[in-house]
Amino acid sequence: MSTQTSSTQKASAVDFQDWAQQLQARIETVLARTLPAADIAPQTLHAAMRYSALGGGKRVRALLCYAAAELCNTSVEIADAAASAVELIHAYSLVHDDMPCMDDDDLRRGKPSCHKQYDDATALLVGDALQSLAFEVLAAPHLCADGHQQVQMLQILAKASGSTGMAGGQAIDLGAVGKPLTQPQLEGMHQLKTGALIQASVLLGANNGNTAQINAVRAYAHNIGLAFQVVDDILDVEADTSTLGKTAGKDALSHKPTYVTLLGLASAKAYAAALYDKALAPLAPFGEEARRLRELASFITQRQF
Amino acid sequence: MSTQTSSTQKASAVDFQDWAQQLQARIETVLARTLPAADIAPQTLHAAMRYSALGGGKRVRALLCYAAAELCNTSVEIADAAASAVELIHAYSLVHDDMPCMDDDDLRRGKPSCHKQYDDATALLVGDALQSLAFEVLAAPHLCADGHQQVQMLQILAKASGSTGMAGGQAIDLGAVGKPLTQPQLEGMHQLKTGALIQASVLLGANNGNTAQINAVRAYAHNIGLAFQVVDDILDVEADTSTLGKTAGKDALSHKPTYVTLLGLASAKAYAAALYDKALAPLAPFGEEARRLRELASFITQRQF
Repeated sequence: MSTQTSSTQKASAVDFQDWAQQLQARIETVLARTLPAADIAPQTLHAAMRYSALGGGKRVRALLCYAAAELCNTSVEIADAAASAVELIHAYSLVHDDMPCMDDDDLRRGKPSCHKQYDDATALLVGDALQSLAFEVLAAPHLCADGHQQVQMLQILAKASGSTGMAGGQAIDLGAVGKPLTQPQLEGMHQLKTGALIQASVLLGANNGNTAQINAVRAYAHNIGLAFQVVDDILDVEADTSTLGKTAGKDALSHKPTYVTLLGLASAKAYAAALYDKALAPLAPFGEEARRLRELASFITQRQF
Repeated sequence: MSTQTSSTQKASAVDFQDWAQQLQARIETVLARTLPAADIAPQTLHAAMRYSALGGGKRVRALLCYAAAELCNTSVEIADAAASAVELIHAYSLVHDDMPCMDDDDLRRGKPSCHKQYDDATALLVGDALQSLAFEVLAAPHLCADGHQQVQMLQILAKASGSTGMAGGQAIDLGAVGKPLTQPQLEGMHQLKTGALIQASVLLGANNGNTAQINAVRAYAHNIGLAFQVVDDILDVEADTSTLGKTAGKDALSHKPTYVTLLGLASAKAYAAALYDKALAPLAPFGEEARRLRELASFITQRQF
């Protein structure tokens, strides 16, 4: 990022864990400032929005956004707005996914999910309002010097969130419960359900990049998005609920097709490793500036939660 | 609008009913083209989105948008995009409002509501994806020659939809069931729940206007938004379900505060008439170009459905 604050100025000198922690703290601060205060009417809605969007998560999408911004020298203002927008979309999707008519999950990030802490109607509105807020953040006046470039960012976010992006992936996922899927079908579903927003995170961060950089991060994002989901499926089998902060073993119980049920555990792990390699390949022409993207690929494929 | 097609070219020569019918047909065509086809995956989601957003409604928001565009000479491309965007947001809000955890209404525009025709999970995703699509439409590349002006339109839509706009009004409405509200409280709730999107419809249509025009339509929209809701409350008492196309008498059954319960029927009618006058006053400096906005004010306050 071009106008880094002191906390991230010497990014290349600090190790990955410090870098990630600094930016996790940063996005938390930015989101806390962006979300309406809980004493502004309607108070319950705002408290529930803050409950759902703050205080948790690995913030992988924000980190991907900041890492791409570092490669492409995107300004810190744009990176902050883009990182907030993708985290708000992600938070809204979790709130709606957890609702009884969807995955019916009581636990999220180690806390009661939004509809358990509040109620179903509030959770519905929280998700709706978080989605609007994501677009509001990215439509901040004169965020980009070039208004058309900013419109393009809004287009990327809208497409990634909609019926041929994340929401579409959810719909395919719903329709697939209990059905055998082929690997291409499973992959197509995940490319929408999680891949689209991960790709948007990277592309929004790469806002200022040249064509070579943007093509490279797009290919990176495609593979790392898939890897993310493969690892998610592995963790659903291997990790326990307290480590995950969400209910473990849920996929098997709900007869959802996963990479593990499709490929078996060992092959799923080998596939995640292969995707890691494929994600890194397009970054080869870039040096130290792509370091965080490489480290994130490693973090995503080796994470335990 | 500056580059009208033949269907609306002689707008000022045709009477209001013809004008409205032409533009209702126009917005239907634009939406039909904008919504993904039902044979594009995920098919069920796309079919349900089309089911919910097409084929019905008075399209008051689209008409307000087109009428403001006529006053301000906004291009037809921008007016179409803005009218689609507000109708998509409105359609999403109806789908979510009808869900069991909200108003639990089985009937909408004379048909089974989305969650009855499909299921709750689909209805949730339909609303989510319609919201994303509204922003996608308004983020069409180079819709406005000035990108910053287009970003401002996206900002208006996002604010009007979010927690201090429509979704916020819903939250206040939910919290108010069975509680006595003062008139200012009721008014504040409706200014968000329906007023914010009506105001956005007019402001987005007025995109190309000068300061005098924009100030005038803002004041117009404020009053007509309130009038719309007062009439809605009157119709809920006076009309029957088949005329309304939605369940009549619902407010009284659910002990929702309304203008009728607060003011009584006669005073509510007098209040609607007063708001009509207040809506028209700021349009006085404008001549024939504001004709459709005046006619719409009359339509909104005198409608029987």
